Amino acid sequence: MAEYDPENIFAKIIRGEIPAHKVYEDDKTLAFMDIMPRTEGHTLVIPKAASRNMLDIGEDDLCALMKTVRKVARAVKKAYGADGVLIQQFNEPAAGQVIFHTHVHILPRFEGVPLKPHTGEMADNDALAASAEKIRDALEE
Amino acid sequence: MAEYDPENIFAKIIRGEIPAHKVYEDDKTLAFMDIMPRTEGHTLVIPKAASRNMLDIGEDDLCALMKTVRKVARAVKKAYGADGVLIQQFNEPAAGQVIFHTHVHILPRFEGVPLKPHTGEMADNDALAASAEKIRDALEE
Repeated sequence: MAEYDPENIFAKIIRGEIPAHKVYEDDKTLAFMDIMPRTEGHTLVIPKAASRNMLDIGEDDLCALMKTVRKVARAVKKAYGADGVLIQQFNEPAAGQVIFHTHVHILPRFEGVPLKPHTGEMADNDALAASAEKIRDALEE
Repeated sequence: MAEYDPENIFAKIIRGEIPAHKVYEDDKTLAFMDIMPRTEGHTLVIPKAASRNMLDIGEDDLCALMKTVRKVARAVKKAYGADGVLIQQFNEPAAGQVIFHTHVHILPRFEGVPLKPHTGEMADNDALAASAEKIRDALEE
């Protein structure tokens, strides 16, 4: 497995070097909107500590990460009135990993509505800001 | 969200009422082969305590579950010499959940090899037994 590269974009988001549409943050984790969403409300959760993926993450970071995943998954479901929630985590390129800082995808799902393909197109900034606000509101309720 | 049904098949596996090709077990979690694998080595990890999915699981069970996911994911990658590992967890039918006891899918992935569709066909029993043995061996190394 390759070394962790501290110049990956999620590390830059953690350090505040590039912006993100944040929905939740605590000492150990951060949740923000995926800028190439496969559905409205597509959210990512990352640990703040460095790790490449599930294959090298530490136990404490993993527990903190998943507690936030659980919390945000519930809020995303509520915010969108979704029928279900898909959780995915990709390890290495063969499994779909593109950014090499551990991250978990949270995708609200609706009966009969397929996910959009991963096009590589960035979503509208205002739409992402509105999504983040909607999920933050659901977290506060 | 519907009530937890203690007659679901994973609850029966935990109680030993129906068999499974087990790869790992501890006080709080159990890992075994998916009998309708989307790839060779497709493994499931479940908490022993009752929960329907990520939307109602308790914090301790979630941490224990994910520690086992991490452990088994590493062993599956090693056992199959996989290039990557896909981790998926489905909440409610709209997200693909079919059995209503919390479970996490671990799928070894190989460059250029797509997953098989979910056909609903059961894999050969001897092949599943051999897969379980292969992963148990990798866990012991």
